[in-house]
Amino acid sequence: MSGEFDVIARIRARAGTRSDVVLGIGDDAALLTPSPGMQLVVATDTLNCGVHFPAETAPYYIGWKSLAVNLSDLAAMGAQPAWCSLSLSMPQADDAWVDAFIDGFMALASMHGVALIGGDTTRGSLSICVSVIGFVEPGHALKRDGAKAGDDIWVSGTLGDAAAALSLWQSGQAMPAALRERLDRPTPRIALGCALSGIANACIDVSDGLLADLGHICKASGVGAEVDVDSLPASSTFFAFTGEDLETRRHLQAAGGDDYELCFTAPADAGRHVEDAARSSGVAVTRIGRITKAHGVRALLDGDAWQPISVGHEHFSG
Amino acid sequence: MSGEFDVIARIRARAGTRSDVVLGIGDDAALLTPSPGMQLVVATDTLNCGVHFPAETAPYYIGWKSLAVNLSDLAAMGAQPAWCSLSLSMPQADDAWVDAFIDGFMALASMHGVALIGGDTTRGSLSICVSVIGFVEPGHALKRDGAKAGDDIWVSGTLGDAAAALSLWQSGQAMPAALRERLDRPTPRIALGCALSGIANACIDVSDGLLADLGHICKASGVGAEVDVDSLPASSTFFAFTGEDLETRRHLQAAGGDDYELCFTAPADAGRHVEDAARSSGVAVTRIGRITKAHGVRALLDGDAWQPISVGHEHFSG
Repeated sequence: MSGEFDVIARIRARAGTRSDVVLGIGDDAALLTPSPGMQLVVATDTLNCGVHFPAETAPYYIGWKSLAVNLSDLAAMGAQPAWCSLSLSMPQADDAWVDAFIDGFMALASMHGVALIGGDTTRGSLSICVSVIGFVEPGHALKRDGAKAGDDIWVSGTLGDAAAALSLWQSGQAMPAALRERLDRPTPRIALGCALSGIANACIDVSDGLLADLGHICKASGVGAEVDVDSLPASSTFFAFTGEDLETRRHLQAAGGDDYELCFTAPADAGRHVEDAARSSGVAVTRIGRITKAHGVRALLDGDAWQPISVGHEHFSG
Repeated sequence: MSGEFDVIARIRARAGTRSDVVLGIGDDAALLTPSPGMQLVVATDTLNCGVHFPAETAPYYIGWKSLAVNLSDLAAMGAQPAWCSLSLSMPQADDAWVDAFIDGFMALASMHGVALIGGDTTRGSLSICVSVIGFVEPGHALKRDGAKAGDDIWVSGTLGDAAAALSLWQSGQAMPAALRERLDRPTPRIALGCALSGIANACIDVSDGLLADLGHICKASGVGAEVDVDSLPASSTFFAFTGEDLETRRHLQAAGGDDYELCFTAPADAGRHVEDAARSSGVAVTRIGRITKAHGVRALLDGDAWQPISVGHEHFSG
């Protein structure tokens, strides 16, 4: 079994480089040169085994996802990621596990030119805490508090796949690969987030569930929202999986978490700019509703109020 | 019992402010304005219950220490801290526990003008992951790799107190308050680290044990070290505790961890500058040895080689 310093050495050898990393892993702290004139954007998210991923998840996917959920937060700000740190707690050192974990983590990091600049490894329950630092031009960040009554509400990609995969997993059924990929290997919408800067009025990533996350935008902006539940975009695999069970479909799409798509609002006359941004980013976007003066998030079905079984999930609330 | 968002609200209300925090807790990520022309210094450290602190530690001290160990890393770089993030995993929400934890965390943060700018709360084994970001002038960081043969080796404050407290705790004995304070509420040597910038050639904070941490400097710098074991500075409480048991005293001072003092090297003719820096920072410093061309760290007792029972500690190595 390796000691802590061997684990660090294994990780350090894979950390990636950037010209703005003056000193990476190996000292008391990292030294970095920020881009002149840019604001820093910092996000931190922890994944705990059994809470945020099933214990039997392959380490490659745990590595990927622990970075992806943080990059997704930067995408939701319209920021370009640059550096990340990784704190890894695990019950015992396991070289093969660490190597596969870092394979997944760095596969995503290198796709976005992100360097791993520090962190630590400690003994404990399996838990991964990642921080990501990126840049945005001053005044260009996509915040939650900018939605305005009359804005269109948009969502990227498709909704419900990850929640469908999780429900299959939890009930011990086989999962179609396309759904499983969405749960295990979410795609942070970095390019779309950056392209929406200057177009969208507010943005959030869908991690707790669409209605819950849209609720955060509405609360921060002092507005409300109406969402047409049957307009929510779905993948063909998701359609095949849910079949004729429309209520399950609606619940998974409106209240299921872990999709890591972007939900954003933009002025009604900015539709063409939104679609141009989506095209240049290689991801589809769908208009799903409208921001209202009246507070609260209302899900509508053929114009009537519709209520999901549960709206998102809170940790500690069970 | 509170939900996750109530816990976040409790923490957010206490986060502190700085003019360079454009957007703090409450969005997908924080927005920060770095100081023009400065390098960023980033450290991350995790504390797990039962590994880094005994389960019965009071939450105030857990909060203090989880920030202190990170500020100590910045001190060892000669950096001025500015912002921190906090990821808190706990088995269940507990308002009184969180309030006391944040009391300790923010007591130290406000002493150093550090704002809490983000993080998350999740369900899991009790674990605290903190990241700290600070500034240093380009070229002024204290790194581990700058020690030169002939340098004096110095250490701040006193050594052994925290290890003595831990050994008493582990054997179920009463602890003198002065020792317990050193274990529970370590003092990051921020002012000293900043004052040593431009004077010291290399620096590290003593977390794993003096000889182990000095070994990191020697390895990074391609040099060795000789340390006079009986020159290590001790507090009067520590002297009273160890009494005539000189071997226990030496082992606790040379190999015990958790003191969070600075160990640094400086040219032999810089002694007066070192002492001026110490005086202006309000902390004592003691010369404990000399950097050598010959590799390895040698502990000496009256000029003869002396061997501690264990040299520092590694996680995963047990």
